[in-house]
Amino acid sequence: MAIITLTTDFGEKDHFAGATKGAIYSELPDVRIVDISHSVSSFSIPEAAYIIQNAYSSFPKGTIHIIGIDSEINPENKHIAIKLDDHFFICANNGIMSMICSEIAPEKIVEINIHDKIQTSFPVLDVFVKVACHIARGGTLEIIGKTIHEIKPMKNIVPYVNEDKTQIIGSIIYIDNYGNVITNIKRGFFETIQKGREFEISARNHKFKKVFNKYSDIVNFEIPEEKRNDEGRGLVVFNSGNFLEIAVYKSNSATVGSASTLMGLSLMDTVSVNFVKKSVEVFTEHPLKQELKEDL
Amino acid sequence: MAIITLTTDFGEKDHFAGATKGAIYSELPDVRIVDISHSVSSFSIPEAAYIIQNAYSSFPKGTIHIIGIDSEINPENKHIAIKLDDHFFICANNGIMSMICSEIAPEKIVEINIHDKIQTSFPVLDVFVKVACHIARGGTLEIIGKTIHEIKPMKNIVPYVNEDKTQIIGSIIYIDNYGNVITNIKRGFFETIQKGREFEISARNHKFKKVFNKYSDIVNFEIPEEKRNDEGRGLVVFNSGNFLEIAVYKSNSATVGSASTLMGLSLMDTVSVNFVKKSVEVFTEHPLKQELKEDL
Amino acid sequence: MAIITLTTDFGEKDHFAGATKGAIYSELPDVRIVDISHSVSSFSIPEAAYIIQNAYSSFPKGTIHIIGIDSEINPENKHIAIKLDDHFFICANNGIMSMICSEIAPEKIVEINIHDKIQTSFPVLDVFVKVACHIARGGTLEIIGKTIHEIKPMKNIVPYVNEDKTQIIGSIIYIDNYGNVITNIKRGFFETIQKGREFEISARNHKFKKVFNKYSDIVNFEIPEEKRNDEGRGLVVFNSGNFLEIAVYKSNSATVGSASTLMGLSLMDTVSVNFVKKSVEVFTEHPLKQELKEDL
Repeated sequence: MAIITLTTDFGEKDHFAGATKGAIYSELPDVRIVDISHSVSSFSIPEAAYIIQNAYSSFPKGTIHIIGIDSEINPENKHIAIKLDDHFFICANNGIMSMICSEIAPEKIVEINIHDKIQTSFPVLDVFVKVACHIARGGTLEIIGKTIHEIKPMKNIVPYVNEDKTQIIGSIIYIDNYGNVITNIKRGFFETIQKGREFEISARNHKFKKVFNKYSDIVNFEIPEEKRNDEGRGLVVFNSGNFLEIAVYKSNSATVGSASTLMGLSLMDTVSVNFVKKSVEVFTEHPLKQELKEDL
Repeated sequence: MAIITLTTDFGEKDHFAGATKGAIYSELPDVRIVDISHSVSSFSIPEAAYIIQNAYSSFPKGTIHIIGIDSEINPENKHIAIKLDDHFFICANNGIMSMICSEIAPEKIVEINIHDKIQTSFPVLDVFVKVACHIARGGTLEIIGKTIHEIKPMKNIVPYVNEDKTQIIGSIIYIDNYGNVITNIKRGFFETIQKGREFEISARNHKFKKVFNKYSDIVNFEIPEEKRNDEGRGLVVFNSGNFLEIAVYKSNSATVGSASTLMGLSLMDTVSVNFVKKSVEVFTEHPLKQELKEDL
Repeated sequence: MAIITLTTDFGEKDHFAGATKGAIYSELPDVRIVDISHSVSSFSIPEAAYIIQNAYSSFPKGTIHIIGIDSEINPENKHIAIKLDDHFFICANNGIMSMICSEIAPEKIVEINIHDKIQTSFPVLDVFVKVACHIARGGTLEIIGKTIHEIKPMKNIVPYVNEDKTQIIGSIIYIDNYGNVITNIKRGFFETIQKGREFEISARNHKFKKVFNKYSDIVNFEIPEEKRNDEGRGLVVFNSGNFLEIAVYKSNSATVGSASTLMGLSLMDTVSVNFVKKSVEVFTEHPLKQELKEDL
């Protein structure tokens, strides 16, 4: 039984998501529909890109993902279907897929052309559902579109690294439900540049010298609970999607506050990582002397 | 396999929607439950009416729609079940169904009487679920209620037209997730009155002389993208449900603004359409002269 | 076919709920997943406890409930699985289950130990899904954990009763989507203390002398509708979960207001019930005289 997922900016109130599901069940009574999110900020391509990238791979191979963000067709916004990592994605060619595609090469991209005469203000219902059901029935991408080899890129998805590799300049691409702010710096990228060096992460006037693996690693459990004061403390983790994230321990925007509210961090703000520059001259010294210096 | 949909004002947080689904699966393990919306504003009958009208027809024939808005039974608020357009609707007789019924005549309406002794503050769980499962098992409406022929009307669902048919006065009945404002003026109604004449649509001090078929029709794609300035511009479309809608291109209430926020339009505000009055005397002239005048 | 429910503070926007569902379907393609709530306030254990208590029993016996609130494992926060009332619950041992367990004794509690080496900031995905699928396949709790006999309690779940049983002092444990405020005073507890006496319920400076069975019981339907003025009036009911609730008739926080906004009631505020003390001496009088007094 095929699975079709939905990621849209339809919101929780309107009829759009419900109507879309009805249309899918009308074509395929036995399919399974899973809501990933309908609360993407209106027309926010970076948010949708982040959400689908972090959700899709938990689904079984063969899952079909409909992404309904800024999907009205026009001369500059075509519809595409992509096969990548044995999953299918149906969306507008507006940059949403460039974050995933920068990490995993697509097997196939087609520009959908089954609907050249459909004028619609609800393309998810009128076009994406038809394409998804076609794929769910085992149809190939070639039948519903013509192969293309490039998709529209999204700006600012790769962080900047300076020439001598002492600095990464990233930016905040997502703020989650806990108010934690997520940067475009991924663990693998970070570690490749880091090469084991110490570092200082800066976001506004906040500095961090450590990246944790989970949130409660900030707590010293040897101190009795009543003497600890960790709720509301800032920290940095590689989150479950391996993105560098500035978080607040047990955050709640309405009570203790969150990374976003307490540190004043917003979407697209800069987060920089400065690595300690190992000076070249030290290697001209006797290795033993160097080792002694490092121990001190 | 039957489909049961849910449209309620339960919100996203409380246990009400979850408990309702649990009760349905307890009776019918194989049924399919689809959330249409749980974020209808509390006790808002017009919102619920708009949402269900726009969602229901995408579902397969035979689908059973539970509408849980203002559904506590009392001497003035009875429970009804309606068969209409080969779909079933279960709700309170509080006006919710009058918008759909004004367009499509119901095949059957019953006032539910299986529960005359149930005192409950959660009628969706205690009554509507039982009725829905009865219908899903193939039961008839006659068994769970007595036939009635009238339902309670909802105010302000039909726009006003003046005597010489030069003006439609409608009102805003819904504001969607994008902040677009939707009127009670439907395309068919509009065109019947219009008879091809030019018009001016007014909402507060905003005027529009054109209705688009989709949002991006406002964009002139011949102008290079960097020179265009369309995001945040107001326009009028017939939306996917064929309602006249005042929209803002790529609106986002939190950033560029929306039709509601930018134009100061609220629920129940008036939207009027003035048609150009063809004066009667012109027909006393020679037809050719008249044609010449019109060309000028 | 097994049912797995989800109750979390993931919110409606992020990928967490979607990823969790994908992981479950990857293990068990035929399972049924039901969202109870993803909008629990961040890290709010009392809210989650209230929601799951009121939702779970509508589901069929054998249902598996994942509760993902404050579930990161650490030396003070272990993961547990509980069998209770023929349902299964998987959560952190942080007090969430103590509200249910105070009413129904668990059949079995295990501290999960299948993951002693997993370091994860997304335990719902990495641990709870595995445990839920194990149970759904018919596996026993003993295989995934070691039996324990106590769980961590939650503070303030039981109301206080004074020594001569003339007063109950409860507190507000939940505010629902309608802004109604729900106390920790349950109907059975109330009636046991009440023993038929009259009472006065106080919340701030608001007093109530009656508890209704449903909201519209406050309306006098003998008065013509246009002369009534009930919307926005405060009342007390035993709600559908049998909790004492202070409500507002047809409340809407955005329009007429709600119990929370109109009466200024917040989470953890005190609600007291004072019972009329029947003075002992009255019984020394002639019964008829006593009756006469009561009539006056």
